[in-house]
Amino acid sequence: MGRTSDAREKIITAAQSLIELRGYSALGVAEICKSAGVPKGSFYYFFESKEALALTVLDEHWADERRDWSRILDSDAEPLQRLRQLFEENEAAQRDGQKTCGTISGCLFGNLTLELSNQTESIRRRLQEIFDAQVGMVEAVVAEALRRGEVDVADPREAAQGIVAQLEGQVLFAKLYNSLSPLGALWANCLALLRVRAPQEAAVGA
Amino acid sequence: MGRTSDAREKIITAAQSLIELRGYSALGVAEICKSAGVPKGSFYYFFESKEALALTVLDEHWADERRDWSRILDSDAEPLQRLRQLFEENEAAQRDGQKTCGTISGCLFGNLTLELSNQTESIRRRLQEIFDAQVGMVEAVVAEALRRGEVDVADPREAAQGIVAQLEGQVLFAKLYNSLSPLGALWANCLALLRVRAPQEAAVGA
Repeated sequence: MGRTSDAREKIITAAQSLIELRGYSALGVAEICKSAGVPKGSFYYFFESKEALALTVLDEHWADERRDWSRILDSDAEPLQRLRQLFEENEAAQRDGQKTCGTISGCLFGNLTLELSNQTESIRRRLQEIFDAQVGMVEAVVAEALRRGEVDVADPREAAQGIVAQLEGQVLFAKLYNSLSPLGALWANCLALLRVRAPQEAAVGA
Repeated sequence: MGRTSDAREKIITAAQSLIELRGYSALGVAEICKSAGVPKGSFYYFFESKEALALTVLDEHWADERRDWSRILDSDAEPLQRLRQLFEENEAAQRDGQKTCGTISGCLFGNLTLELSNQTESIRRRLQEIFDAQVGMVEAVVAEALRRGEVDVADPREAAQGIVAQLEGQVLFAKLYNSLSPLGALWANCLALLRVRAPQEAAVGA
């Protein structure tokens, strides 16, 4: 497995927790190593720089999240119900995070987009790829619902971007108020964005 | 006018620019003073701490933005057209910022919410007040449109929060892609969230 080791994983896990709690800029390599319980020399054996570590954290977090998104959005359930499940699982994940950390940390990708995307080109590009992929996965479901005549949108890609934007915006509010309640609006707002006639109708198939 | 002075304003202006470009955590007081052309002693004459400065930057930025939002949202135009104008002026402001800085910096309030709201209680509270006020201003317009039978929403407050969430989410994408194009979806998505029957109808009155 090449250069993988226990120390490498410890550094990545510690970095992800610290970035979720305090952002990227506020962190130093020494603090990450201390939290990981790994000597500083190990850090530079595995990572060229803090930026390289951040890219790895993004990749690993997206690999996990993409697995969840694929399981949900590529399932055999009705298309709109898959979107509903995506929001419900997102809310459950934020609830777990709140229990563990005492505060809602929000979306790692959204956080780093607003903190870093206008400063660090490599991180901007990686975040673009991740959000492109997220929007593409939602777009495929919207296109399927459109073929089935369940939604009324002109451009599935734009509709999907509106849905992911709504998700990021409500997660921002959840973090701001340290409350899950903004996430409760995601499903109804998704149906509205997709111009589904009545929320009740779409919910019946649940 | 109490303790106001040229130096104080210089510090606030420099801090706002630096925070928009690089976030809060990455900045030091020395750098802010250097950029403002003000000796470091002056800083602590006007501000107790970097946090106190950040609160002042938020207050001043919101005072300016609230003036714009009031001018637009309290005008005599049709309610939905006021929302449209809000999005158009937001896009124009991001365009100006992009021209000046070479990159879209996004929304100062959204940026600091994701960077800091789970770390610094005073900043979290201030940002809550600002977003409460924004949602309240949009809510008043939605309630007016509801009374006129122009929109179909169950809860104007929740609808308003959905609209501001969509705005923050699309501004996040604008920053991520350094592109204004995500902001072009705001008006159509707002109409969808408000369950306005057809975008064309609402646009006729423009």
